[in-house]
Amino acid sequence: MNDYKKLLEGVKEGSISIEDALLEIKKKPFEDIGFAKIDHHRSLRQGAGEVIYGAGKTPEQIAEISKRLLERSERILITRLDDKQAKDLSECLEFTYFPGTGIGIVGSLPEPTTQGVIVVATGGTSDIPVAEEAALTAEFYGNRVTRLYDVGVAGLHRTLSHLDELMSASVVIAIAGMEGALASVLGGLCDSPVIAVPTSVGYGASFGGLSALLSMLNSCASGVSVVNIDNGFGAGYLASMINKKGENR
Amino acid sequence: MNDYKKLLEGVKEGSISIEDALLEIKKKPFEDIGFAKIDHHRSLRQGAGEVIYGAGKTPEQIAEISKRLLERSERILITRLDDKQAKDLSECLEFTYFPGTGIGIVGSLPEPTTQGVIVVATGGTSDIPVAEEAALTAEFYGNRVTRLYDVGVAGLHRTLSHLDELMSASVVIAIAGMEGALASVLGGLCDSPVIAVPTSVGYGASFGGLSALLSMLNSCASGVSVVNIDNGFGAGYLASMINKKGENR
Amino acid sequence: MNDYKKLLEGVKEGSISIEDALLEIKKKPFEDIGFAKIDHHRSLRQGAGEVIYGAGKTPEQIAEISKRLLERSERILITRLDDKQAKDLSECLEFTYFPGTGIGIVGSLPEPTTQGVIVVATGGTSDIPVAEEAALTAEFYGNRVTRLYDVGVAGLHRTLSHLDELMSASVVIAIAGMEGALASVLGGLCDSPVIAVPTSVGYGASFGGLSALLSMLNSCASGVSVVNIDNGFGAGYLASMINKKGENR
Amino acid sequence: MNDYKKLLEGVKEGSISIEDALLEIKKKPFEDIGFAKIDHHRSLRQGAGEVIYGAGKTPEQIAEISKRLLERSERILITRLDDKQAKDLSECLEFTYFPGTGIGIVGSLPEPTTQGVIVVATGGTSDIPVAEEAALTAEFYGNRVTRLYDVGVAGLHRTLSHLDELMSASVVIAIAGMEGALASVLGGLCDSPVIAVPTSVGYGASFGGLSALLSMLNSCASGVSVVNIDNGFGAGYLASMINKKGENR
Amino acid sequence: MNDYKKLLEGVKEGSISIEDALLEIKKKPFEDIGFAKIDHHRSLRQGAGEVIYGAGKTPEQIAEISKRLLERSERILITRLDDKQAKDLSECLEFTYFPGTGIGIVGSLPEPTTQGVIVVATGGTSDIPVAEEAALTAEFYGNRVTRLYDVGVAGLHRTLSHLDELMSASVVIAIAGMEGALASVLGGLCDSPVIAVPTSVGYGASFGGLSALLSMLNSCASGVSVVNIDNGFGAGYLASMINKKGENR
Amino acid sequence: MNDYKKLLEGVKEGSISIEDALLEIKKKPFEDIGFAKIDHHRSLRQGAGEVIYGAGKTPEQIAEISKRLLERSERILITRLDDKQAKDLSECLEFTYFPGTGIGIVGSLPEPTTQGVIVVATGGTSDIPVAEEAALTAEFYGNRVTRLYDVGVAGLHRTLSHLDELMSASVVIAIAGMEGALASVLGGLCDSPVIAVPTSVGYGASFGGLSALLSMLNSCASGVSVVNIDNGFGAGYLASMINKKGENR
Amino acid sequence: MNDYKKLLEGVKEGSISIEDALLEIKKKPFEDIGFAKIDHHRSLRQGAGEVIYGAGKTPEQIAEISKRLLERSERILITRLDDKQAKDLSECLEFTYFPGTGIGIVGSLPEPTTQGVIVVATGGTSDIPVAEEAALTAEFYGNRVTRLYDVGVAGLHRTLSHLDELMSASVVIAIAGMEGALASVLGGLCDSPVIAVPTSVGYGASFGGLSALLSMLNSCASGVSVVNIDNGFGAGYLASMINKKGENR
Amino acid sequence: MNDYKKLLEGVKEGSISIEDALLEIKKKPFEDIGFAKIDHHRSLRQGAGEVIYGAGKTPEQIAEISKRLLERSERILITRLDDKQAKDLSECLEFTYFPGTGIGIVGSLPEPTTQGVIVVATGGTSDIPVAEEAALTAEFYGNRVTRLYDVGVAGLHRTLSHLDELMSASVVIAIAGMEGALASVLGGLCDSPVIAVPTSVGYGASFGGLSALLSMLNSCASGVSVVNIDNGFGAGYLASMINKKGENR
Repeated sequence: MNDYKKLLEGVKEGSISIEDALLEIKKKPFEDIGFAKIDHHRSLRQGAGEVIYGAGKTPEQIAEISKRLLERSERILITRLDDKQAKDLSECLEFTYFPGTGIGIVGSLPEPTTQGVIVVATGGTSDIPVAEEAALTAEFYGNRVTRLYDVGVAGLHRTLSHLDELMSASVVIAIAGMEGALASVLGGLCDSPVIAVPTSVGYGASFGGLSALLSMLNSCASGVSVVNIDNGFGAGYLASMINKKGENR
Repeated sequence: MNDYKKLLEGVKEGSISIEDALLEIKKKPFEDIGFAKIDHHRSLRQGAGEVIYGAGKTPEQIAEISKRLLERSERILITRLDDKQAKDLSECLEFTYFPGTGIGIVGSLPEPTTQGVIVVATGGTSDIPVAEEAALTAEFYGNRVTRLYDVGVAGLHRTLSHLDELMSASVVIAIAGMEGALASVLGGLCDSPVIAVPTSVGYGASFGGLSALLSMLNSCASGVSVVNIDNGFGAGYLASMINKKGENR
Repeated sequence: MNDYKKLLEGVKEGSISIEDALLEIKKKPFEDIGFAKIDHHRSLRQGAGEVIYGAGKTPEQIAEISKRLLERSERILITRLDDKQAKDLSECLEFTYFPGTGIGIVGSLPEPTTQGVIVVATGGTSDIPVAEEAALTAEFYGNRVTRLYDVGVAGLHRTLSHLDELMSASVVIAIAGMEGALASVLGGLCDSPVIAVPTSVGYGASFGGLSALLSMLNSCASGVSVVNIDNGFGAGYLASMINKKGENR
Repeated sequence: MNDYKKLLEGVKEGSISIEDALLEIKKKPFEDIGFAKIDHHRSLRQGAGEVIYGAGKTPEQIAEISKRLLERSERILITRLDDKQAKDLSECLEFTYFPGTGIGIVGSLPEPTTQGVIVVATGGTSDIPVAEEAALTAEFYGNRVTRLYDVGVAGLHRTLSHLDELMSASVVIAIAGMEGALASVLGGLCDSPVIAVPTSVGYGASFGGLSALLSMLNSCASGVSVVNIDNGFGAGYLASMINKKGENR
Repeated sequence: MNDYKKLLEGVKEGSISIEDALLEIKKKPFEDIGFAKIDHHRSLRQGAGEVIYGAGKTPEQIAEISKRLLERSERILITRLDDKQAKDLSECLEFTYFPGTGIGIVGSLPEPTTQGVIVVATGGTSDIPVAEEAALTAEFYGNRVTRLYDVGVAGLHRTLSHLDELMSASVVIAIAGMEGALASVLGGLCDSPVIAVPTSVGYGASFGGLSALLSMLNSCASGVSVVNIDNGFGAGYLASMINKKGENR
Repeated sequence: MNDYKKLLEGVKEGSISIEDALLEIKKKPFEDIGFAKIDHHRSLRQGAGEVIYGAGKTPEQIAEISKRLLERSERILITRLDDKQAKDLSECLEFTYFPGTGIGIVGSLPEPTTQGVIVVATGGTSDIPVAEEAALTAEFYGNRVTRLYDVGVAGLHRTLSHLDELMSASVVIAIAGMEGALASVLGGLCDSPVIAVPTSVGYGASFGGLSALLSMLNSCASGVSVVNIDNGFGAGYLASMINKKGENR
Repeated sequence: MNDYKKLLEGVKEGSISIEDALLEIKKKPFEDIGFAKIDHHRSLRQGAGEVIYGAGKTPEQIAEISKRLLERSERILITRLDDKQAKDLSECLEFTYFPGTGIGIVGSLPEPTTQGVIVVATGGTSDIPVAEEAALTAEFYGNRVTRLYDVGVAGLHRTLSHLDELMSASVVIAIAGMEGALASVLGGLCDSPVIAVPTSVGYGASFGGLSALLSMLNSCASGVSVVNIDNGFGAGYLASMINKKGENR
Repeated sequence: MNDYKKLLEGVKEGSISIEDALLEIKKKPFEDIGFAKIDHHRSLRQGAGEVIYGAGKTPEQIAEISKRLLERSERILITRLDDKQAKDLSECLEFTYFPGTGIGIVGSLPEPTTQGVIVVATGGTSDIPVAEEAALTAEFYGNRVTRLYDVGVAGLHRTLSHLDELMSASVVIAIAGMEGALASVLGGLCDSPVIAVPTSVGYGASFGGLSALLSMLNSCASGVSVVNIDNGFGAGYLASMINKKGENR
């Protein structure tokens, strides 16, 4: 509000005419009063500014954005890199690449700071790349993460053998393709929020993840919500948001 | 083949010319040689002739067809009746109506003749009408049937509390709307064929049963196959076919 | 675990043979050891047992279930009642009906016990029935709720005039039909989890809520997840789960 | 109408028989009387004849068509070229290629002749190729163009920081993939026509642009209309049509 | 900006302290500084505030909103009324109802003030209700409108017999169900913007307007854009926006 | 062309000036020169003018159109009437109504004039209304028609028992809902064109006829083409067109 | 029927016993009595046996099938060859390849034997490969063919300039992608059957030909039927069937 | 249950305290008591453990899993291998690859042990890869298999010439793409269960198998159920399950 104070002082002193002041107020209502601050606020709290969506960007663009971000962040998460991008990027930027997950991290993963644990569960082994995107994202934001891979409902004993981890989780991320039943089963077992991630794993009538998506949206278990197909990052980010609600008490 | 025998005898005896015999053979290849027999055969073995699809038929039409069928069948299964049809039909035909299931039966249900048990399981209570269509169909064909209703996967303990029935079933019919996960869970638990029936129960993104249908088609459990949305009759009929494979030994 | 203790004591004392004990353990692994407890546990923590999905149930069924539930609950939430059901139900059960929302409540709404506020925002006035389903659900579970109705993005100043409420919310429920843009805009403004509820409001290419559903799933804002079309209850329940994570510290 | 005048004069003079004249009139009602003129007219006014849709054409075909068009046009716009086509084409035709946009221009872009400004706005950086197709098309037809890229609604302050340009625009082209909310937000802020271009940017439930398409069609803001997914040219052409309505007064 | 002017004058005169003025500015940034003006601005220019979307509103709600709007508007357009609503509404509000179009108008339609003509064309007679919604909307905003109904492409001579009106139109609204080819044909004939409105007229594979919608989006004619299925109001409003660009010179 | 002849004669005689003649030619290019004749031509050859699409028209409108058409036609075909319309219409117009088919005929059906026979076959009894629409349409245009109803492929012997009729048909109309396999089977058996009509008969995954439609479009038999779902009229009309190709030799 | 004649002669002569004859008749009812003849019959009349669907076959398989077919056919039509297959095939089989059309022909195209002309029309130049598949197929079966390419409805004068050819055609094949309006326009202009072929040409909301397919199915012109997307062969084959109905009189 | 027996013996003997035993039972309820056995049970009966889904696995992973499985299985079935995987895998594992089917088998196929025959029928030659996946799977589990390839319904005589095999089959697997009519025709001819496998064979409106899938789900023949598109393994496995029901009596 300093700008406005100066403006008002100028008006009072007569150094700024009322008309000019009015124009000034009219011209910049958004960036000056509130929004720039909002933006700043968000990047401080959420670190959203520290993530780069890698798909479709050249290594040079990613490196350039990284450099700018590093001025105010310790670490950067790059998502949806392919192997070729990662290789080329490694020539102009120092970072750790997690092959098969699309994830690159500039700087190191932090020590987990949360008491609450985010469980990342997958129906099959083919869902692991999406799961790692979710898990690494959650770890990037300082969360404690437990991975339960290949615990799909067609072999219910595998699911149930992890009942302890599931029931003590703060948030559960249920990742599955094909029929996507994992979300409902975990939603019924757990009393924590379940974030369901349909994956494009499958063939035929899975229609690129549509089957799992619809299945998860129709989950008859309470406490289940859904993100986009293959959106591991979104699930990890949201899980971190929720997990941190219960921390720092 | 009697007609052909007579024809050949006539040719041999000279009472039928070769040209006439050729014409005869050419004229009726299908109905005379094999197909009428096939048809007869089918109705004997399958009783398919004893079922009337009630939807869109007038009470008079149903009564008329029933009378013709009763000449060679003891009992008749009428499917997809609505209450109005049933009421009107009851004025011209003696039969038992099962309200809320769309099923009417002329004659009485037979005593079960199979050792094997068909388990009819539903995810919720709203799936029961479809389930009864399946169960009554199976019973109509003489099968022993166990009903497990409202054992949906969001309350897994309900499902698991019936593990005995499920694991000893000869065939399982899994009926569910919404996310349709029941088929996968039962497919993973049982080692008998699972016939999945998606239902149109649900709202929003269930899209009239599409969600459950896709989910069931993508089941990652082996031994699961799917029939049309709400097709209880089809499931009961197929279950009977399979169940009887293991009988009469 | 009392049953198992008795069993083991019997084995130790010799009053139960090892074979009988083994059979007992084999026979009831689920209901006896863990799952009944899980179920009990869930209803205690989540109150999920206290909700009745009214659609497709007769007033008698709802009244009957209510009576059973009232034995261990102070209040019951009934969802998806229509006016006819509500009227009939009022003859056999004392409850408060919220016309136009599908909600009936047996007992009274509790005083809010949370510090955190759940904001329920809608794009238009036609989304209010779904919003009330969400808001009353959240209040039923003791949450403090703020309603911001008709703040759709086509009149952005309406949205922005509530920036304070939005930015201080613990959880935001964004409810919109048609193009469903509200979720993205709120997701960009808030730093709390946003639960998006697509509604079937609209016509033509809204395809019964599909447009809003896809839009919300593709939200480019982080922290947004989606529930089924028109699923106000699911959103309210999940919001309560998340809101309570930050309480009782 | 010269041909008809000559014909009539011939009839009057007797050099053409009535029968021949009738045949002549019958034979060419369309191309001679009106339509050829219509066609001519259109290419004069709209320059539509000066655009080549490059996709699926060989460099030779494009070069050949270009040469014919250059006989009556100063400049030619080629759309949907890929890098390979552009490289091959450069060997037989002099033109400027705009890498990453699919656009090639024979001749030079004209100086803008309009007072009104067309704002081309995109939700993200991945939408820029489509945006450049739109912007270059508008410039090709002599329009003044302002580019506002990466002003998506998840960071509303970015959108609002360009309020001046948006509110003074003559036409706005809103280009976005994923949830396509940009069209509604701009439609609500601006009082000029908004042409919405859904893009195929995104993954999963964006279904190749379907999500953004439906979202934009359902826009609750007035003054918004939609063109095909990724159809930058169509948007630029229509925007030019509208912008020029307000010119030359 | 009057409030701000007074505030500044107060500051200049010393009757308001800088601190109080700052607080005032901080407290109501949106409605007072900028957005209310935007809003005000919009209603002046666009009259958007003068339209009531009738669907789903009670007669009382519509009457109430109308009264508020009449304080600053001479006339009000009510869309998507059904006959029942219109009848009930007529008891508490004076207005003219246009049966079969869903349109009610409070006050009288203005004399057309534009030179430019908006042509509203339909493929068949069943599209007329949507067309009247568009035409009356355009007339409500003071546009000159020509109606060309039932000029569908299967009888091309009907279309072509109106070539004069079509070619001299300022804007064309092409309204068609079924195959929606009208938009392409008019787009090819006219050199003015064509706003295509798919309608839900048809059966079978028209899928509620989807066929016409896709057809229109894929129009190979330039200058065509599309609004939602049956959205006559949207087309009429946008056409008015465009038509007025060429006026008042 | 009489008008033009007179015009030319006038020019030749000097009673009309060249300028006036030019103006005349310019003024009415379509209706006078060519298109009116085209239109006239079409109604003569095709009788298309003699059909009234009844859906959505009031009895008064239908009666009015009928009267105009009867001035130049002996008989009129009205399609898609419902029982209510038919009853009301019978009060102002003399015609024969075919209950359950939607067809009304003013005047009497003509004696068949073709040698070639159009076979109208249906998969089931529920397809008969659509079949009668097709058959009556074909008869209306003077074709010889054979009806083969309920010959669906699940009872192949029924299909094959009509091999004679099928193989001697001039055109076959294959009408089926559900899986629509009839078109392929008949396409394989017959060597005449097969016009496939998908019907909306079925439930669940028949999706209103979509299943049969896709099935028929993908027919692996040659000589099969498809019309819109439930479009009996279109099939009958096209069959008549084709059948008449082989007549009058 | 020669086999049967011999059999009957043997029976008459006593050289074959009645039992052996019966067995013979029973053993091979289909291929010997009727179906082989049907099959033979079909290949004689239709030449269907002379077509090879090339897609997915190895050059060796195609060459092998060709050799067998050449024993009883003069010429063979191979469809859906790609350039690679064609090149490899040319090493083991003499044939003419039509690049860009997928068509190869063994032997030479016959002189046209029909009076009637099949018009093959396309909306754009990208539809030509499908059109050539249709045109060459029709020519392969001896039909006179006129090609009218790039006469799409967005430039109606192009369509209308070929009115003569269109109105005198025996059958019209209308081939178009994108919005597929060509079928309706031609259906309205011509009084011969119109076979519509949607093509996968287009992008975005053309959804691989779905837009054109739906558009053509919903054609409001009578006499239009539709084949599968890109199915040039099917259209050419059916057109030949219909064209020949009017020949040899 | 050996672990539990020991535990109980320890309790009886006094070497384990009741508390410790309780803890032990509580700690591992699923894997130890029941589910591991269930799992073990399943792998014994079903051999499900002996199948490896090859898609997306590295040769190393497949080899590793194979080695573990070979400890308790004689043979292993690997599905959905591509040629590259198969080649690489052959360097680290001894197995037989069936090119074009995606199937690899470690060990040798067993001699068939069933009386009942599984008929695997395909509509065309392009369906053979899916058919071989089904047939080899059935043989892998010891079933007698008859292959009937290319017996599609467009050439019904081909289908019918195998009536004997079809009518004596224990289970029929009907595999077809495009219009998928084979399932209905076989379902009508056979009185054994028919497992329908839609394939992705086709183009255009086959939409990757959707057409065949819907067609099969809507089959009007009784006894037909459906598995996922291209899911040969699932069909073969289920057929084996059903076939074995009738064995060992």
